[in-house]
Amino acid sequence: MKGKFISVEGTEGVGKTTNIQCIEEWLEARGIAYIATREPGGTALGEKIRALLLDKDNTAMAATAELLLMFAARAQHLEEKIIPALAAGTWVLCDRFTDATYAYQGFGRGLNREHITQLEKLVQGDLHPDFTLILDIDPELGMSRVRARGELDRFESEAMEFFDRVRTGYRERAAENPARYCLVDASDPLAVVQEHIVAALNIFAGEG
Amino acid sequence: MKGKFISVEGTEGVGKTTNIQCIEEWLEARGIAYIATREPGGTALGEKIRALLLDKDNTAMAATAELLLMFAARAQHLEEKIIPALAAGTWVLCDRFTDATYAYQGFGRGLNREHITQLEKLVQGDLHPDFTLILDIDPELGMSRVRARGELDRFESEAMEFFDRVRTGYRERAAENPARYCLVDASDPLAVVQEHIVAALNIFAGEG
Repeated sequence: MKGKFISVEGTEGVGKTTNIQCIEEWLEARGIAYIATREPGGTALGEKIRALLLDKDNTAMAATAELLLMFAARAQHLEEKIIPALAAGTWVLCDRFTDATYAYQGFGRGLNREHITQLEKLVQGDLHPDFTLILDIDPELGMSRVRARGELDRFESEAMEFFDRVRTGYRERAAENPARYCLVDASDPLAVVQEHIVAALNIFAGEG
Repeated sequence: MKGKFISVEGTEGVGKTTNIQCIEEWLEARGIAYIATREPGGTALGEKIRALLLDKDNTAMAATAELLLMFAARAQHLEEKIIPALAAGTWVLCDRFTDATYAYQGFGRGLNREHITQLEKLVQGDLHPDFTLILDIDPELGMSRVRARGELDRFESEAMEFFDRVRTGYRERAAENPARYCLVDASDPLAVVQEHIVAALNIFAGEG
């Protein structure tokens, strides 16, 4: 039996950590074996690549280099962790995956989205998340939360227009494939947000 | 006036450093402005990626991750250093370029060479070296020189069969496009090797 692959997406300060916890509780309540992981990162090499990507000192990073570093970390993550877990019947819960690449490098940086699709095919073959939660929020509101947390990384230091484009990217991805994506308004009270998430997970699991 | 792009290739211990020096002397004798650089690396970010690639502690590196890291460093190198230099009329002399990716990741690791061609197109567009020197040697001989230099990096630690495949890759690339490649037997005495190199450069420069 193959495990299911769930990814969680959203712009800065959207509440991913809290809502991933909600999904973990849902999985645990059903006795589903899972691993929780993140991108970029998730492996020893991937975390080193993540450090390069987030380091504010790498001010001159070319957008195409950023794109390829994301997929390098992803290739390692898939081979070392995600594919073996799914093959063993373990579910994978991943904080960001390739939708983030479309949103941040495609919409945010303006890179050619056909290039992203080429890389996605090259690295993933036909493997995609089975269920993707997109937490949607006005980037102004999200960034006010992030700023309250402390120092900003290389992505968090981008201008607001960048996050507006990223948000548009996520919304377009969700609209194109409503069967896979669940877009939730993350500005709602947390209890309402999590009610939506649990309802969507129940439908995904065939219990809804 | 656009500068010319020269790359120098070869397996471990083939004498790249010494023969790059020979090319530098040839350029200087003609008063040609040039930069000497290397891959993976050549930029601040690229050198950080190089450190990941050569670090023997990264034993679990997936071949596709290695391939994408090579092209990430290359994308940065092109945008930050190589393209601006060529546009300014400066020649670029590069210690390894994409032929090394075909040889090491394609032939050596056995990765799909069509994937390498896709990445080459995505990262480089139509930009390729104008002249590529391939120094050819029996890998046994080359590695005996490398071992005498001290500790081995992640690539140098590969088995001899790996270097045999890499050498085959270089030789096939050279055979496919004799107009661009100059393959020199690096087991000849240094004076003979450098005579061949200078003769090939003179032909390339239209002086031969």
